[in-house]
Amino acid sequence: MANMARRHPSEEHRLIESLKPLVNAGSNPHYLLGIGDDAAIRACAGEKLILTADSQIEGTHFSLDYMSIPEVGYRAMAVNLSDCAAMGAKPDGAVVQVVFPKTLETPNASIRKLYRGILRACRRWDFPIVGGDIAGGPCWMIAVTLLGALVGEAKPRTRKGALAGDGLWVTGRPGESAAGRAALVKWGRCGISRRFRGHAARHVTPQPRLELGRALAGDHRVHTMIDVSDGISKECRTLAFENSLAILLDAGAFPLTPSLKALAAELSIDPCDWFLHGGEDYELLFAASPDYVPAKGAEVAVTMIGRFVAGKPKVVLSDHRSGTRAVPNAGWDHARKRLPASQ
Amino acid sequence: MANMARRHPSEEHRLIESLKPLVNAGSNPHYLLGIGDDAAIRACAGEKLILTADSQIEGTHFSLDYMSIPEVGYRAMAVNLSDCAAMGAKPDGAVVQVVFPKTLETPNASIRKLYRGILRACRRWDFPIVGGDIAGGPCWMIAVTLLGALVGEAKPRTRKGALAGDGLWVTGRPGESAAGRAALVKWGRCGISRRFRGHAARHVTPQPRLELGRALAGDHRVHTMIDVSDGISKECRTLAFENSLAILLDAGAFPLTPSLKALAAELSIDPCDWFLHGGEDYELLFAASPDYVPAKGAEVAVTMIGRFVAGKPKVVLSDHRSGTRAVPNAGWDHARKRLPASQ
Repeated sequence: MANMARRHPSEEHRLIESLKPLVNAGSNPHYLLGIGDDAAIRACAGEKLILTADSQIEGTHFSLDYMSIPEVGYRAMAVNLSDCAAMGAKPDGAVVQVVFPKTLETPNASIRKLYRGILRACRRWDFPIVGGDIAGGPCWMIAVTLLGALVGEAKPRTRKGALAGDGLWVTGRPGESAAGRAALVKWGRCGISRRFRGHAARHVTPQPRLELGRALAGDHRVHTMIDVSDGISKECRTLAFENSLAILLDAGAFPLTPSLKALAAELSIDPCDWFLHGGEDYELLFAASPDYVPAKGAEVAVTMIGRFVAGKPKVVLSDHRSGTRAVPNAGWDHARKRLPASQ
Repeated sequence: MANMARRHPSEEHRLIESLKPLVNAGSNPHYLLGIGDDAAIRACAGEKLILTADSQIEGTHFSLDYMSIPEVGYRAMAVNLSDCAAMGAKPDGAVVQVVFPKTLETPNASIRKLYRGILRACRRWDFPIVGGDIAGGPCWMIAVTLLGALVGEAKPRTRKGALAGDGLWVTGRPGESAAGRAALVKWGRCGISRRFRGHAARHVTPQPRLELGRALAGDHRVHTMIDVSDGISKECRTLAFENSLAILLDAGAFPLTPSLKALAAELSIDPCDWFLHGGEDYELLFAASPDYVPAKGAEVAVTMIGRFVAGKPKVVLSDHRSGTRAVPNAGWDHARKRLPASQ
């Protein structure tokens, strides 16, 4: 219905009217019509628009045992913004479809809380909500479709384009999200010791790399880019197969912090497993020519963790302790994806 | 992730690869990049795009007790196409987010069945699926975002624009969907007698009025248009409040068929209640100037069921038996929407 503004006095009406002033903040003048009709209208003038779609389902992607409703809203938008970042695009407008649990006693108050989190992301990256849908169901589900605009002559970085000899680079510190999730499942939000709270924050409030994504898309030395949602190992596999190249990962180069290693030791987990297979990092993984040097003063560190080599598509890990071995295909499979707590 | 084509050999991969040849049928050349990356890319050249969003949730909008999985897929697309019709736009491309029940033994086969229904609608109205997402959850949920293009200089018909004196017209036969749902709940799919099967079909496979919607949007006598998803009474209320006019409905003009009346008698229901409050009709409701005459030979009948008059926003029903009375606000409320069977 893309219909969020019927002005008749119903429960739905009251809810939507209360969301409207929030939702229209940071409005984009390209939208000739926003919330309040059968559809939104977006004017174009020779632009290229990108479209991403990602949903967050209670019990599959998050648990309210250790996340607040506004955090769920923020995260639902952040995971889409990460896809937008991987295309080198600027967020333009979003459509939000919300399913709330029918068992809620005060659904409108909870939906408003969810929107507070969603709108935190909208304000931070300056784009409006232009349509949506709200309905009751068995649990929380938030399905976002995000439109992004490719600015100027920017060429999007797709999954193809890597060359043999390219370095494989990653932003930030993959594995922290999985570590944070493990800590949250183990100790709950309040029980996590102070030194591990940063990992939990990385899981709960991922930071889409929008500015860096646009900068990388504008750098001719960057040949291909993907966002890390299902784990480094799975995204590497995608890049290896899409480019018909082998990827050689260097375990010694993985950016693992002392506190991550300490948490891994406490939970008897190999920190490399979090790095390789944990998933939900929402960092950028990209191929760049050998002369690529990261820009100084960037908002987030980028690290070379391996390289592309000629050969059959596969992902191989080189480790000074155990030598060289094939990386198993252990990233999250959407068709089987579950929270560890419910496995 | 808008990611439906990772070429590594996982469960997800096999599923997506099997969907790919289906999904790319009827491809739209405006999409520079479709399924298989972080996002789809849509080129624009001064066009106006519309965006609709509507989701179908098992137990709220449909039940597999009396609908097949392909029918659910078709319906999820049809309800979005109906919003597109109400804007006078041509469908352009869709993003489909699917949640399937984790308890399914063969999820991939079921998701392929769902896509068969979705693609029936795509082929019928010639537009591609350009992105999506698949994940496990507690039940089926299909969230569609549809892009549509306003062709040439076509002006979309929004909810505002009706004038006092305008006629209120509706396409097809609202109430048939609610009648069909009642029959399905009462007798099940196989138990419905032959004479009532047409009503069940109207519920299960609604027909979006795309061609008629574009024709109406091109007619200067048509002032405002909305699709009937939540019931005539609720959509009338919307039009009355949006236009600051009263609407006078003429019960004698409602297009109620003899078989609908027979079914209503059998279930001891007032057929006018189905017409006014049943919902899920996916017909078009529009205001047109007094000189409007429906085009001859149209695919579907249009009927004048009332008129707009100056006065406070309200909806009044005139009936030769019981005189004139205010229409209660009994349309479906999204925030409370449930299948009658689960009420």
